[in-house]
Amino acid sequence: MKRIVVVGGGFAGVYAARALERHLSRHNHWDLSLFSRENYFVFQPMLPEVISGTIGLTDVVSPLRRLLPRTHVQVREVESIDLARQTVTAAPGFRQHPHVVEYDHLVLAPGTVTDFRGLTGLPEHALPFKNLADALELRTRVIRTLEEADVEVDDAELHRQLLTFVVAGGGFSGVEIAAELNDFVREVARCYSRVDPRDIRVVLVQGQDRILPEVSPKLGAFAAKILQRRGVELALGRRLRAATGESAILDDGTVIPTKTLVSTIPSSPHPLIDALALPKTANGRVVVDATLRVEGYSNVWALGDCAAVPTRGGSPCPPTAQHATRQARLVGRNIAAALDGRELGRFDFEGLGKMGSLGRHNAVAEILGFNISGFLAWFLWRTIYLAKLPGWGRRLKVMTSWTLDLVLPAELVELRLDRSTGAVHEHFEPGQKVFGQGDLGDRVFILLSGRAEVVRSQGSAVEPGVERVLATLAPGECFGEMALLGNVPRNATVRCVEPMTVLSIPKREFRLLAANVPGLRASFEAVMMRRGLLPPS
Amino acid sequence: MKRIVVVGGGFAGVYAARALERHLSRHNHWDLSLFSRENYFVFQPMLPEVISGTIGLTDVVSPLRRLLPRTHVQVREVESIDLARQTVTAAPGFRQHPHVVEYDHLVLAPGTVTDFRGLTGLPEHALPFKNLADALELRTRVIRTLEEADVEVDDAELHRQLLTFVVAGGGFSGVEIAAELNDFVREVARCYSRVDPRDIRVVLVQGQDRILPEVSPKLGAFAAKILQRRGVELALGRRLRAATGESAILDDGTVIPTKTLVSTIPSSPHPLIDALALPKTANGRVVVDATLRVEGYSNVWALGDCAAVPTRGGSPCPPTAQHATRQARLVGRNIAAALDGRELGRFDFEGLGKMGSLGRHNAVAEILGFNISGFLAWFLWRTIYLAKLPGWGRRLKVMTSWTLDLVLPAELVELRLDRSTGAVHEHFEPGQKVFGQGDLGDRVFILLSGRAEVVRSQGSAVEPGVERVLATLAPGECFGEMALLGNVPRNATVRCVEPMTVLSIPKREFRLLAANVPGLRASFEAVMMRRGLLPPS
Repeated sequence: MKRIVVVGGGFAGVYAARALERHLSRHNHWDLSLFSRENYFVFQPMLPEVISGTIGLTDVVSPLRRLLPRTHVQVREVESIDLARQTVTAAPGFRQHPHVVEYDHLVLAPGTVTDFRGLTGLPEHALPFKNLADALELRTRVIRTLEEADVEVDDAELHRQLLTFVVAGGGFSGVEIAAELNDFVREVARCYSRVDPRDIRVVLVQGQDRILPEVSPKLGAFAAKILQRRGVELALGRRLRAATGESAILDDGTVIPTKTLVSTIPSSPHPLIDALALPKTANGRVVVDATLRVEGYSNVWALGDCAAVPTRGGSPCPPTAQHATRQARLVGRNIAAALDGRELGRFDFEGLGKMGSLGRHNAVAEILGFNISGFLAWFLWRTIYLAKLPGWGRRLKVMTSWTLDLVLPAELVELRLDRSTGAVHEHFEPGQKVFGQGDLGDRVFILLSGRAEVVRSQGSAVEPGVERVLATLAPGECFGEMALLGNVPRNATVRCVEPMTVLSIPKREFRLLAANVPGLRASFEAVMMRRGLLPPS
Repeated sequence: MKRIVVVGGGFAGVYAARALERHLSRHNHWDLSLFSRENYFVFQPMLPEVISGTIGLTDVVSPLRRLLPRTHVQVREVESIDLARQTVTAAPGFRQHPHVVEYDHLVLAPGTVTDFRGLTGLPEHALPFKNLADALELRTRVIRTLEEADVEVDDAELHRQLLTFVVAGGGFSGVEIAAELNDFVREVARCYSRVDPRDIRVVLVQGQDRILPEVSPKLGAFAAKILQRRGVELALGRRLRAATGESAILDDGTVIPTKTLVSTIPSSPHPLIDALALPKTANGRVVVDATLRVEGYSNVWALGDCAAVPTRGGSPCPPTAQHATRQARLVGRNIAAALDGRELGRFDFEGLGKMGSLGRHNAVAEILGFNISGFLAWFLWRTIYLAKLPGWGRRLKVMTSWTLDLVLPAELVELRLDRSTGAVHEHFEPGQKVFGQGDLGDRVFILLSGRAEVVRSQGSAVEPGVERVLATLAPGECFGEMALLGNVPRNATVRCVEPMTVLSIPKREFRLLAANVPGLRASFEAVMMRRGLLPPS
């Protein structure tokens, strides 16, 4: 009995398992497992359509079990791989016991991750765009800001901030998101009587001085023209330097006030691959030979975005679905060949072209050397991807959705899932308020790094008088504890002086903890006594 | 300028606003606001279909803005109402400032809530079923347990527990949920090669000795027969007494091991209504006269489930959509009449009948005195509700979904949204383990009430030897802190001795806090030193 384990449920992993199901059918003794974090496979090219709801939320993904009837699909995150013992350890499920699986052949295809670590404020405030949950969260955020903009009409600054949307990354992914988001916001804004479409801003930030560096300059310029005509602002030659809960900050100092920041960059190696002692390229991709076998191993294979697969020219394959699926087919054939002792095949594929949607009825494509743009490219985009979508059921549903979309208005249901988000980190830049005097308090804060000042103004909220600095806060200090005393407005403003990170804890949660942990309560009571909020004991 | 504020976005509130838009069009000076927690209106009768995904997730709800083009829809929760000052205060949005709206006429229609408070373990472990988020959460949970059952095949007890689903409440709502859930689980189980359909249990718990007390005994018996034939177990004459994370406990002592417990009971008054000093019935419904005006007020109206609207016979209206929509039309007409100084109309509607779906191609209905069951009732159910669904777009989408559903297999995408859920309460009953020796630790616990013992066994996990009680835990004590030391297995079992509630804090979150709150760290270090896990300082 030969045990084959595939790690990853994207194009590479799923198509490898499919190929294995096909090639291994002749062997009686095999057992094929695939580990995936989600129970579905995301058809990435259509993911941006989730933002506008053109396609049903669950139709852009395919359940793995239907695609892989003879594979043991295990919906668990892989925690570690032991190459010496030939085992894969998965994260625990409902019960907290380790789940270890042995393998004879291992297929590595976990892809890459959008990793904001080390980028100022991005882990706390930027939205990634990789899976269905990300897409749904962006959609929910966009509708939420429109709803809020329709209520907050007296505060012009807040109103405009709510209507500003920033997308970082001007490659295919960022361009498609910006196009889709822009179309959607401008269409549904008509339903919000207190929202003026002229107040809406969609900004695409790109480090290079052109968008879509993947295609020819001419197509890139065409895409830029189309986006601009539809109202997307291009911030070229500038990078996202930092993010806060109130703004996106570019490297030239530009501050864009916004509540919605999506970043498609940077793509980093998957932590699982990171932890393995395998030969890798400078950017962390696993080195494989043309048979897709990892250097130095006879039973470990790698493909897709996590691997550096050599092309005929010598440079590694680009991270695209067309390459991943072809690598997957080869891995399936090669593992079967290895089990049978036959000769292995070699990867030899040069890519057919590139396509990107620009939203309603427009796209750019570079196919077999031809540049195509406009309606024809869009038609090709839809046709080719519809044909590539796995499963007839999915295709039928997507076709139906596209047809209904022609006659029905855009969907604007806000699918808000109310879960307490617990304690979170928040990042602030100098001059920014954590909260203002007179605000209602629903959170307690602990300063982790940086510096803030506590300021009280004598005037009213409308006519602020002279400000007086009451205190300076250093790391380790807590503030906002007044919120615990009841529904009273904040009696001072806390403003950032040096870039800072704070731990922000919801009132409900803090109360749960403080009521039961004597040390925590004592800590806070001491601070409150010092500030005169509690009588000395 | 007359300002009218409607509180509530269900059948009562939405149809009242629609009627007001119609009746008030002749008056030039009016301003109509509607407050709703969600930006959509839930078409309750179709909500159970979200479980199986027969209808697209967002198609069973309608965006309020499209239904109410001339109303200022404010998607904010109402926090309080001041009847003396005639103001409504809404919860803050992104910015923490109070939002107060004045009214000349107030329409109260917040409905009821499923309130588990005071029920042992239900707030922590039972799922309600009221809005789209609830339905989606149940769907996600059901798929999650199937995925886990497909991985956990070695542990037969856990495997069966994962495949057990309990629904509490045998009225229309509970029956429809149980029927839909049962159909769905049994259909998709075929895709899970390690799940034996015979291990699946769907249990419907009902306090009375028959289901569907709303209809005639004959129809109730018919529904019971259909459900049982499809594999639903009926637990009649028994009530849900308590819930834990591992089981549902009935009042006759039956313990049903399960990870999925839905409860449609009890329906309690909305907290907003609870807080108002208005004349109310014993069960907390607002007393109104036949014109739907609240006793003692000339400008406050109440309708829908929150109000006790008298019928001709004297008993209050049942809480159904058909009554709510008719009350809504009357409120609209009466407010217009009150503004014009005309005479008010009186509520006079006796109900047309009752209908409930039993899942695929079966239903029961009592219409105009006739009892109907089986396919005809199901056909009527679909036709009538499709016609009642507001908006042609929605109807077209639902019809399309129903048609595609005939040819396509059930959708089994698990729409998991990864959010940290922070610190939560958990309830345990005697004999139950919080965690077992050898488990992996990812949470830290604080005992809030009850009693537990710490037990260590000398044998292995497979062959447990003699157990030794190491300690007894009392309220205020923390345990599981070993988890903070790294990825080491638990060195003892903690088992409940007296019914207890614990605060369960995820490791990541606890670390954030402990690293920054000196008092918290000191508390835990003291405990760890006492238990010999840390050297004395």
